[in-house]
Amino acid sequence: MITDLKIHFSQENITYDGKQLSAHFAYRRFGICGHSCVGFIGPCHVNTSELVDLEDALAHDFIKAKSMLHFITEIFINDLNLMIAYQRLMVTCLADELHTLLTDKTIRRDGDDIFIDDRKFTVSIASLSAVSSLIHLGINIDPTGAPHHVNAIGTEELEISAPALATSVLNRFKHELSSLAKARAKVMSCGEYK
Amino acid sequence: MITDLKIHFSQENITYDGKQLSAHFAYRRFGICGHSCVGFIGPCHVNTSELVDLEDALAHDFIKAKSMLHFITEIFINDLNLMIAYQRLMVTCLADELHTLLTDKTIRRDGDDIFIDDRKFTVSIASLSAVSSLIHLGINIDPTGAPHHVNAIGTEELEISAPALATSVLNRFKHELSSLAKARAKVMSCGEYK
Amino acid sequence: MITDLKIHFSQENITYDGKQLSAHFAYRRFGICGHSCVGFIGPCHVNTSELVDLEDALAHDFIKAKSMLHFITEIFINDLNLMIAYQRLMVTCLADELHTLLTDKTIRRDGDDIFIDDRKFTVSIASLSAVSSLIHLGINIDPTGAPHHVNAIGTEELEISAPALATSVLNRFKHELSSLAKARAKVMSCGEYK
Amino acid sequence: MITDLKIHFSQENITYDGKQLSAHFAYRRFGICGHSCVGFIGPCHVNTSELVDLEDALAHDFIKAKSMLHFITEIFINDLNLMIAYQRLMVTCLADELHTLLTDKTIRRDGDDIFIDDRKFTVSIASLSAVSSLIHLGINIDPTGAPHHVNAIGTEELEISAPALATSVLNRFKHELSSLAKARAKVMSCGEYK
Amino acid sequence: MITDLKIHFSQENITYDGKQLSAHFAYRRFGICGHSCVGFIGPCHVNTSELVDLEDALAHDFIKAKSMLHFITEIFINDLNLMIAYQRLMVTCLADELHTLLTDKTIRRDGDDIFIDDRKFTVSIASLSAVSSLIHLGINIDPTGAPHHVNAIGTEELEISAPALATSVLNRFKHELSSLAKARAKVMSCGEYK
Amino acid sequence: MITDLKIHFSQENITYDGKQLSAHFAYRRFGICGHSCVGFIGPCHVNTSELVDLEDALAHDFIKAKSMLHFITEIFINDLNLMIAYQRLMVTCLADELHTLLTDKTIRRDGDDIFIDDRKFTVSIASLSAVSSLIHLGINIDPTGAPHHVNAIGTEELEISAPALATSVLNRFKHELSSLAKARAKVMSCGEYK
Repeated sequence: MITDLKIHFSQENITYDGKQLSAHFAYRRFGICGHSCVGFIGPCHVNTSELVDLEDALAHDFIKAKSMLHFITEIFINDLNLMIAYQRLMVTCLADELHTLLTDKTIRRDGDDIFIDDRKFTVSIASLSAVSSLIHLGINIDPTGAPHHVNAIGTEELEISAPALATSVLNRFKHELSSLAKARAKVMSCGEYK
Repeated sequence: MITDLKIHFSQENITYDGKQLSAHFAYRRFGICGHSCVGFIGPCHVNTSELVDLEDALAHDFIKAKSMLHFITEIFINDLNLMIAYQRLMVTCLADELHTLLTDKTIRRDGDDIFIDDRKFTVSIASLSAVSSLIHLGINIDPTGAPHHVNAIGTEELEISAPALATSVLNRFKHELSSLAKARAKVMSCGEYK
Repeated sequence: MITDLKIHFSQENITYDGKQLSAHFAYRRFGICGHSCVGFIGPCHVNTSELVDLEDALAHDFIKAKSMLHFITEIFINDLNLMIAYQRLMVTCLADELHTLLTDKTIRRDGDDIFIDDRKFTVSIASLSAVSSLIHLGINIDPTGAPHHVNAIGTEELEISAPALATSVLNRFKHELSSLAKARAKVMSCGEYK
Repeated sequence: MITDLKIHFSQENITYDGKQLSAHFAYRRFGICGHSCVGFIGPCHVNTSELVDLEDALAHDFIKAKSMLHFITEIFINDLNLMIAYQRLMVTCLADELHTLLTDKTIRRDGDDIFIDDRKFTVSIASLSAVSSLIHLGINIDPTGAPHHVNAIGTEELEISAPALATSVLNRFKHELSSLAKARAKVMSCGEYK
Repeated sequence: MITDLKIHFSQENITYDGKQLSAHFAYRRFGICGHSCVGFIGPCHVNTSELVDLEDALAHDFIKAKSMLHFITEIFINDLNLMIAYQRLMVTCLADELHTLLTDKTIRRDGDDIFIDDRKFTVSIASLSAVSSLIHLGINIDPTGAPHHVNAIGTEELEISAPALATSVLNRFKHELSSLAKARAKVMSCGEYK
Repeated sequence: MITDLKIHFSQENITYDGKQLSAHFAYRRFGICGHSCVGFIGPCHVNTSELVDLEDALAHDFIKAKSMLHFITEIFINDLNLMIAYQRLMVTCLADELHTLLTDKTIRRDGDDIFIDDRKFTVSIASLSAVSSLIHLGINIDPTGAPHHVNAIGTEELEISAPALATSVLNRFKHELSSLAKARAKVMSCGEYK
């Protein structure tokens, strides 16, 4: 029950190189202690050696974009199954917001990826540290630099304000976790079918 | 890691009265042993006394519809937080399918509810039994009989085939759980931010 | 991490007979949804058949007092080991408060019991329901009616205000759980000794 | 249920520099395998770089004392929430003992700290390794060397025997864990409030 | 880590009818509090309505034998996956003992069943109560009364002393759990393969 | 519930030096993602520094054999107690197979070791990585090189085909985990003994 997600959007420009997906990023960088989701804008450049998705790492993949809107979520649980479910819900929050913003586009979620008119809009991974579970969600602003095999799209081309989108996603995800907690607390148990 | 969800759509007409949200429904009714999601069509009539949502029960609410498409999901874990997250993802699978079917309608997910053009399309609850965790998701086919304060909509009015929708939701949810499992298995851990 | 314990002291006089140590007491009685600790004053009369401490039940014991200050804590976890540790900490919060109020008395905690000058001041039990974990802590106000083998003492004889004590215990316990959560969130992991 | 805590007080003088808060310290140093709490006396010098409390580390704090009574507790669970609760209970065991030894002093517990007449008597941290959860509790004997902002007090000034205190704390904590286990094993479950 | 299984062989003749597979049987019947494995001899008659194996219950099966050696194991965990693994290990302890006693017979374990020369020697089930996990293991002494489709064998025909077998199984299982605990406590963690 | 163990026997000759007991060995080496048990043949040489059994490491032990049949099992859970139980069951699967192959030998399992006519046939360890739990089981083919204090025996002397044994063990263990999962899914809960 995550009733108290601390959300923060930083005005600092921060390059995401994979090292930010680590325990206590929000605490060390922004002084935020506890469950948190922090957003910031900056370039993305994750080399193969920093990838934690082993499938991508073995494929010698990398992640690169001139500008992205990044979110780092840290929850102090050691439960990767639950965290991956939360990751999907966070991506769903973004998709829900996009449906309100882009009524004439096709928005497709496939696992933790979002495609807009079949062009890749996001990258995401969920992992765990020794003391917490973590999610990175990166949303293309200007995807220039993405690997050649990726047909990417960003908020600039879509004429979406990245800071406004950040605020919406942070609030939607905070609301999602709160409503999960409420659902947990108000349900009664059930028996054996006869 | 639920890699092996057993999915089944039954041709039997079964009334859902709340008792089906119980351990081993799929085993006793359909002989299916293990994690499962089973779908069927039938009237819905859950009296206040059978509601497991305490908020609704205290409000003396009830659930009634002339015809609904029902799903009962049973996962053999005792983890209500994870199950409620899975419930949201199952509802998301339905929303994702609706976005492909109803391009001219507004589809809005709010927690575990789906609204189409602001009319209520679904009911859902996640709970746990002594040996498992369970989800009921009910989709209006013909919502006649719903409480007066609910402006409901069903598949008949939307000209959607309920059996076809059932198959899509079952397959999407099975795929969702498989891809959660793959994500769990292929990720590496991360360290402490410095 | 229980960061958001909802605390409430009710002015209603409520008899505690054991049935209150049940899931959703605070929700049904006071409309409080989520982790909670609620206090109230009233007689205590728990018959053998309502005891959940099997040792006491097998000894045909009972709990009776003309007036007690009661607390029901409900946390939506299914972890009795953790809940029993929280129970001890709640009792410790009470002992800590008593040390500030009664500087000339001997206050002794033995497990989940508190004795003042070797006279029994409290009763307590931690248990679990199907959806949550629960604590009852009862503090004698007027222990008249206690079993003959028990030399009991209450707040009246000690000239302590029960409502004021209630407020202190509720606040101390809420603070304890918050500080546990903070400690969880700010600690780094450690390695292998060499 | 920790029914079998192995307790040991070593006569060796061992400097605590933070590295001892690691998996298998008791095994490697004293040959003790299993849940354990070991005590020893020695200087304390934990540099900022060895601190696992991130709040302290970011404040460039350090821990130093000419002589301390140290305890390292290791429990083979991976549950930091439970371990932090056990830490508080261990500190409570110390406070309970101090109340019997120092009847004319004010003993105040604040989270995992103990103050005697508002002077700092202890340091403590709970953390986890890859295979276990760990607690360090350090009690000042001679606090000389403590940071200037800390008004510390030790057992020498209080005329308390550190070895005798060690024995009392070890036995109280072992008893606490045993009684937690007994409470877990003898309680029955409870139902839903109506 | 179950380091302290309490084992007991009762001389009382007790009929096993399924109700004994319940929380606190050992406490209520023998005054044993904590993790336990108790053995006794008596008839077996479990009607369909008392079966907790749903597969057997749906097949309208029953368990009956003129005389059996019964074991009830209760561990105060709420983890059915772990308990079923412990059940298999308990059955393995019996098989290991049989291999030393019956060198000219074929002893075959299939899941939680043991067959001697392809004749059924045991029945077993693992389940959970609200506060604990439980195992019943029943060993035929005189299988008279078993269902017709079962070709059963018992200790009488095999000329094995049931009380001596009880003692061996209790000691082997206690040793197994102790050695599991030791293995848990002495192992170090490992890293990522490169 | 491990319903889907991926089993694989590799024809490659691979030296086991301890580094293979690491997260994602099967993925990186064989492209197998998910719960897995992979077998291969090769020399064994684990230096003291690579041992994860602390008891052995402190005794300056090592593991060496000219040829062994190795299995690496990886399950994506973070539960060492359950994994050690699975390890014992895997060793039991091997013992069960040996009983069918070697009817005139004494096969003795002691914890996670198997002895044939009191000569050591296997080595095994269970540990955990940051993202999974792991088992190594090594079966002597030609034990030449084993430490002097070990009286070892291998499949060559026993005239057992190592590849055939590998296939049997892989299939037996896969079946064991499947039947554990089925047992978990079909059992009903039980109540309180009265």
